[in-house]
Amino acid sequence: MLLEKLNWRYATKKMDPSKTVSEDKVERIVEAARLAPTSSGLQPFEVIVVTNKDVLAKIREVAWNQAQITDGSHLLVFAAWDNYTAERINTMFDLVNQERNFTNEGWENYRQMLLNTYPARDAQVNYEHAARQAYIGFGMSIAQAAFEGVDATPMEGFDPAKVDEILGLRERGLRSVTLLPLGYRQPDGDWLVNLKKVRRPTEDFVTTVK
Amino acid sequence: MLLEKLNWRYATKKMDPSKTVSEDKVERIVEAARLAPTSSGLQPFEVIVVTNKDVLAKIREVAWNQAQITDGSHLLVFAAWDNYTAERINTMFDLVNQERNFTNEGWENYRQMLLNTYPARDAQVNYEHAARQAYIGFGMSIAQAAFEGVDATPMEGFDPAKVDEILGLRERGLRSVTLLPLGYRQPDGDWLVNLKKVRRPTEDFVTTVK
Repeated sequence: MLLEKLNWRYATKKMDPSKTVSEDKVERIVEAARLAPTSSGLQPFEVIVVTNKDVLAKIREVAWNQAQITDGSHLLVFAAWDNYTAERINTMFDLVNQERNFTNEGWENYRQMLLNTYPARDAQVNYEHAARQAYIGFGMSIAQAAFEGVDATPMEGFDPAKVDEILGLRERGLRSVTLLPLGYRQPDGDWLVNLKKVRRPTEDFVTTVK
Repeated sequence: MLLEKLNWRYATKKMDPSKTVSEDKVERIVEAARLAPTSSGLQPFEVIVVTNKDVLAKIREVAWNQAQITDGSHLLVFAAWDNYTAERINTMFDLVNQERNFTNEGWENYRQMLLNTYPARDAQVNYEHAARQAYIGFGMSIAQAAFEGVDATPMEGFDPAKVDEILGLRERGLRSVTLLPLGYRQPDGDWLVNLKKVRRPTEDFVTTVK
């Protein structure tokens, strides 16, 4: 079922600007990212949903002028934490205790271990680790879009510092990592829509150690 | 549908060592990673499927002694390319041309752009980029395992250099990034199985720019 959807999807090159993805579909596409597993359950990223036309136009300018950004109806921006701080770690552990309504010594020891290691590391190392977690969520949103029959274009081709500036992300301790325009394909003018999906054959992708 | 599966899954803490995941399920879990989108379609990672008991025992030793590695029936190791080389880029572009049975000037210009930029970059930068792509595939395999009703434990807690050594990955130009033991939960002895899944509330995860 998921495999069918992954075969159906493709990196849409031309979105139909007259079509809008419904809000309930967008909510479920974001929800898939929220449910994604992350290291220690910290969820070190956020999703920004942009529909403002002026903002989309500005982002397009710093993203190789890729038209899907303004032709799609919604743009998801995946933004990772710029660092792991004690406050962020504690917020998540406190939330877990609150939601589960108990505390546990092993869990509290694990919190201390993270508090003793993550905040002391270089911010760039922490950001890189957070960004990797954002990619799991990014993948889940791509899969969920396919389930919804919504076209999407996973994008890394943009200037992250400029997108951060446009959206005011640095002030919020966030750094943009990937973009995901959502919309509906316009097959006329999409050079990729009818081309075969190409992947390395399984024998060049998988090895077994029996 | 995907959301139900993402709610069902959890990072299994105790696998039942008497149960084996069928090969067709494992194949589909790997296939989801193979179909994952990656930057420029380069698929800069591979999956190693380990079932050899001695090898699993060695990996467990360098992975904080996490028992799921040997109690599960299969271990997937996601390994990213250690670098982008001209040969690797050309292999993928040649495969695309062969599978689609034509060449295209825009596509060839894009190949040249990658050849002119990626191999000249620092290997570590290229590896980090490749590792991020592996995380998309990692996420897809986690989702597919959930679809198959197979339990899995996404893991970053291991010594990558030692896993690389055990599996001979560096010689193949690969570096281990994540582990994914597959199996079936053993609820007795799994402290997490009955606990509530906790995620930040949507209002702390998503912002909108209208």
